[in-house]
Amino acid sequence: MGGSLGKALIEARACKEVRAVVRRREAALEAVAAHAAQVADSDPERLVRDSDLVVLATPVRTIEKQVAHLGRFMKTGAVMTDMGSVKRGIVRVMEELPSHVSAIGGHPMCGKETPGLSAADANLFRGKTWVLTPLKSPADHATKLTSELATAVGARVIMMDAGDHDMIAACISHLCFLLASTLVGVAEDTSRNLPDVWTLASSGFRDTSRVAAGDLTMMMDIIASNRDNVCTMLSRARNRIDELINLIESGDEQRLQAELSRVQQRRSAMFLNDGK
Amino acid sequence: MGGSLGKALIEARACKEVRAVVRRREAALEAVAAHAAQVADSDPERLVRDSDLVVLATPVRTIEKQVAHLGRFMKTGAVMTDMGSVKRGIVRVMEELPSHVSAIGGHPMCGKETPGLSAADANLFRGKTWVLTPLKSPADHATKLTSELATAVGARVIMMDAGDHDMIAACISHLCFLLASTLVGVAEDTSRNLPDVWTLASSGFRDTSRVAAGDLTMMMDIIASNRDNVCTMLSRARNRIDELINLIESGDEQRLQAELSRVQQRRSAMFLNDGK
Repeated sequence: MGGSLGKALIEARACKEVRAVVRRREAALEAVAAHAAQVADSDPERLVRDSDLVVLATPVRTIEKQVAHLGRFMKTGAVMTDMGSVKRGIVRVMEELPSHVSAIGGHPMCGKETPGLSAADANLFRGKTWVLTPLKSPADHATKLTSELATAVGARVIMMDAGDHDMIAACISHLCFLLASTLVGVAEDTSRNLPDVWTLASSGFRDTSRVAAGDLTMMMDIIASNRDNVCTMLSRARNRIDELINLIESGDEQRLQAELSRVQQRRSAMFLNDGK
Repeated sequence: MGGSLGKALIEARACKEVRAVVRRREAALEAVAAHAAQVADSDPERLVRDSDLVVLATPVRTIEKQVAHLGRFMKTGAVMTDMGSVKRGIVRVMEELPSHVSAIGGHPMCGKETPGLSAADANLFRGKTWVLTPLKSPADHATKLTSELATAVGARVIMMDAGDHDMIAACISHLCFLLASTLVGVAEDTSRNLPDVWTLASSGFRDTSRVAAGDLTMMMDIIASNRDNVCTMLSRARNRIDELINLIESGDEQRLQAELSRVQQRRSAMFLNDGK
């Protein structure tokens, strides 16, 4: 996502200079050649020192470690934000930053299943929601600058409590992945006796299971960072499945239909306005 | 699906005459005008009497009732097949047909979420799998004629035991629908306190939940007709979810990753060859 943001910012001419911290020295040239940055360096301290806005775009638990470390090198009045998928832990360490720096958590809601610079896409954020999660004492300057960043790359900003964000993300993103994975897992179990499972799977199965093929390293980090909420959502799903089994076994079609119909109407009403 | 088949057969010039049984008298003209049939009538007996091949395309439990009734009017040597989504019950009643008629169950594996003539699509079956489920004593004539029908509209035929089909369909189609519905149901529960659930849902949620918006009347009929297999699949899903909860709560990331990774690789390997 860092590469996509860099590309989008350069394309929008939104910054005086877009700087990228790269992991390997050799990647610096690649990042600049790919128009994902105008300056790139493997030494974060050097780049951070006189930057106005620092955006952390690593996995959640890495961000949690980087915040305190990088905060020390940032100049007075500079702003820190991030693009991590789980917000409570990040906002918590941001609260501890030295007072010359202000910060706000951030999470652009756009699925990116292929990580890495080669998959970077300047249009990734266009029309998407970018959640900002302020600290306990919100810093106007951080909110303003980060909102400008998000808006510059075509996203629309929503302010939200970090805890609310994590609960919602556990449902629409993390449970979503785990249910897709459950579907494929059950199909695999079933295929042991009936290998034609894979032959017969059609467009419905393809779409419902798509996110289960996503980047697992990222998802492992996310699940570990949002463990309580993810378990709450999984329990809710399990309870609904138990309810479905009871209704189907009892043959009570009227109640089953009432239950499924409410959900069917809810889903039909979604994604109507913006063609998503 | 009946309308799509009629259109596809006419376009392929596969039949001497494509005849449609319509529910309401007035629909006869519409079916012919839409090129879904060359002759249409609301009286099935009249159309069935001198037809070579009769294809039942109503809900599963309606097909189960129609088989015996229509079989009596069919001419000697004629073939009956169907397009129902659950096969054991249909094949069972087909076994009881009078001996002058032969039959084979059928199920084209192509999702069609919008029912009705206006949504009929001549290309619906192109490249899709069409499952045929033979009776205990398979009739060569029925197999041959029905295979020709499926091939004529672009599908590839697979022969399969009705019981195996129903178990596989319970997994890749019926469980798929019920898990998508579970996801939307949990999102709805969550939205009571956090209405922003719907604002933040993005492409992953959209795809994973898509089939939950499908035609419910059809799905209710399918679930009731395949109750035992659907409950088996729901129980397998619930057990996997319990396992996920245990692994996530225990913080055993290595075992969780091993479990999810197997599924992730399995899903990544799917749909590679045919671009599905």
